[in-house]
Amino acid sequence: MTEKTNKQIRLASRPSGWVTAENFSVSEEAIPRPADGEVLVRNIYMSVDPYMRGRMNDVRSYIPPFRIGEVLQAGVVSQVVESRFDGLQEGDLVTGMLGWENYSVSDGRLLRQIPSGPAPLSYHLGILGMPGMTAYVGLMKIAAAKKGDNVFVTAASGAVGSVVGQLASIHGCHVAGSAGSDEKVALLKDEFGYNTAFNYKTSDSLPDSVRAACPKGIDVLFENVGGEIFEAALWSMRDYGRIALCGMIADYNLDEPQPGPRGMMLIVGRRLTIRGFIVSDHPKWCDEYVRKAIGWLKEGKLNYRESVAEGIENAPQAFIDMLKGRNTGKQIVQLADLD
Amino acid sequence: MTEKTNKQIRLASRPSGWVTAENFSVSEEAIPRPADGEVLVRNIYMSVDPYMRGRMNDVRSYIPPFRIGEVLQAGVVSQVVESRFDGLQEGDLVTGMLGWENYSVSDGRLLRQIPSGPAPLSYHLGILGMPGMTAYVGLMKIAAAKKGDNVFVTAASGAVGSVVGQLASIHGCHVAGSAGSDEKVALLKDEFGYNTAFNYKTSDSLPDSVRAACPKGIDVLFENVGGEIFEAALWSMRDYGRIALCGMIADYNLDEPQPGPRGMMLIVGRRLTIRGFIVSDHPKWCDEYVRKAIGWLKEGKLNYRESVAEGIENAPQAFIDMLKGRNTGKQIVQLADLD
Repeated sequence: MTEKTNKQIRLASRPSGWVTAENFSVSEEAIPRPADGEVLVRNIYMSVDPYMRGRMNDVRSYIPPFRIGEVLQAGVVSQVVESRFDGLQEGDLVTGMLGWENYSVSDGRLLRQIPSGPAPLSYHLGILGMPGMTAYVGLMKIAAAKKGDNVFVTAASGAVGSVVGQLASIHGCHVAGSAGSDEKVALLKDEFGYNTAFNYKTSDSLPDSVRAACPKGIDVLFENVGGEIFEAALWSMRDYGRIALCGMIADYNLDEPQPGPRGMMLIVGRRLTIRGFIVSDHPKWCDEYVRKAIGWLKEGKLNYRESVAEGIENAPQAFIDMLKGRNTGKQIVQLADLD
Repeated sequence: MTEKTNKQIRLASRPSGWVTAENFSVSEEAIPRPADGEVLVRNIYMSVDPYMRGRMNDVRSYIPPFRIGEVLQAGVVSQVVESRFDGLQEGDLVTGMLGWENYSVSDGRLLRQIPSGPAPLSYHLGILGMPGMTAYVGLMKIAAAKKGDNVFVTAASGAVGSVVGQLASIHGCHVAGSAGSDEKVALLKDEFGYNTAFNYKTSDSLPDSVRAACPKGIDVLFENVGGEIFEAALWSMRDYGRIALCGMIADYNLDEPQPGPRGMMLIVGRRLTIRGFIVSDHPKWCDEYVRKAIGWLKEGKLNYRESVAEGIENAPQAFIDMLKGRNTGKQIVQLADLD
């Protein structure tokens, strides 16, 4: 153990619009002790993800909102320091929903043990964790992508989108996507399995850009963004197309929800299916994915990029940057080195 | 045969906004003769339906648009006058997509023979025809309604909605709906199986009215309207709710498609499924429905209301009135008496 105290990041105030540094506060406490059935862990890596923005608003959703003054939560990879839970012992590596902090105490049943091989530890927050599972469940189960499908992905270079492209490519789909810079667009084509991609920020017409990227139309839309790009993609959907609705990052920083896409009558005429989903509803498919993904990583069929910030103090800025699209691939924060 | 000529209604011009009488023209021709494989029929009843409004616009959809100068098409119940098709003979009763006209010639393979009993002939344009089949396929197959579900129906007193309510009631659902007059609301509760209903035209707040009608939330939304009532219903959806998107009557008379509902992020958080459908994609389910519906009619479990206009000349006004919601139940036009 290096740290003598437990530094924590708390929600100081609810953001109105974009998140700023003022919405966070830093506190420092004594390292907590586990009770019976609990485990004390040292947090090595934590994840910052788009869905957290939604939890900063005081609205009912599938997970309760963060409370003001409370330590924020994140997916974390940790090492057990002290265990009073039968299934875990000192030195074990685990993942779970813990705090934005150096040390956490958790009910042992809420932690999932992970192997120290065959992939880097931080991968369990990304390509082997929630974002990778989300890509697989959304693409292969919710939207039922199959060989030959034309797949379009918004926020294609993000933690989820960068996996969706590769999974679509592995499964024989034609895959196209949109991202927010020319560098990201190049990366999509060079590393993430995309046949074609465009920069939505420099597009003169999103509907035209989507049509150029998917000239035959879209069979499967993996939608992370909402707003104008969602509308443009909807207009290109083919008959019997499937839309996996994963997130609406364009909405998260708006005080008022924006209207849905124009032309929803298309959903009838083209017999479209739109399905919203939450990856944690599908633990069996997640396990199925992790087994397959470890194989694909070994075979070199899956590429992965991380943006790594250092230190718990920098977690708020890493989160803010990720929401603004400044990261490439999965944004994580390293809190400590593994002993 | 009474008529000596064939009176026909043609599309004179494409409507901009609401349809008016000027969008139609009347022509009179000699009664046509069938070629080999064809049948000459005398049209007894024709149907006017909301989807026809979409075909008046010059846009790609699941059926091609009407062409200017062309005889309009409709679902029709007819009697065979002269047959040069092996499967049909003089006097047979048939249904099919034919013209807004007194006599039609059709490829015999495109007609479906119907029995002269056990239900009135006109029922094959309504409760035993496309609207009834649409209600069944949408509610029971697309949205997979099951016992105990909370079902909400927009345009609940229309040709489709009035069947949806009764089917939901037969299957043990709690069913609520919205309609455009107090008389229709009374009819929904008295005749069409609705547990509760409200008049959307006199509602101060559609979201409040929907919440009052479905205090536990909505498991299944049968959506015929779009616009504000769709948004209000969306906001009341329960986790894992299913939305059968049948039509968007609120959009049909707008020159520009209106935006979709605000708050589409709900679709993710509540894991909703939205499915657009076209009943003609599902002939097996349609046959299944007709068999069941004849039984339910006999047992008195299905009620049915028609608004009947008289004469081909009055078909345009009957169509206009239906689009404005002036009809109750299924709007049809009687073109002739059965010989």
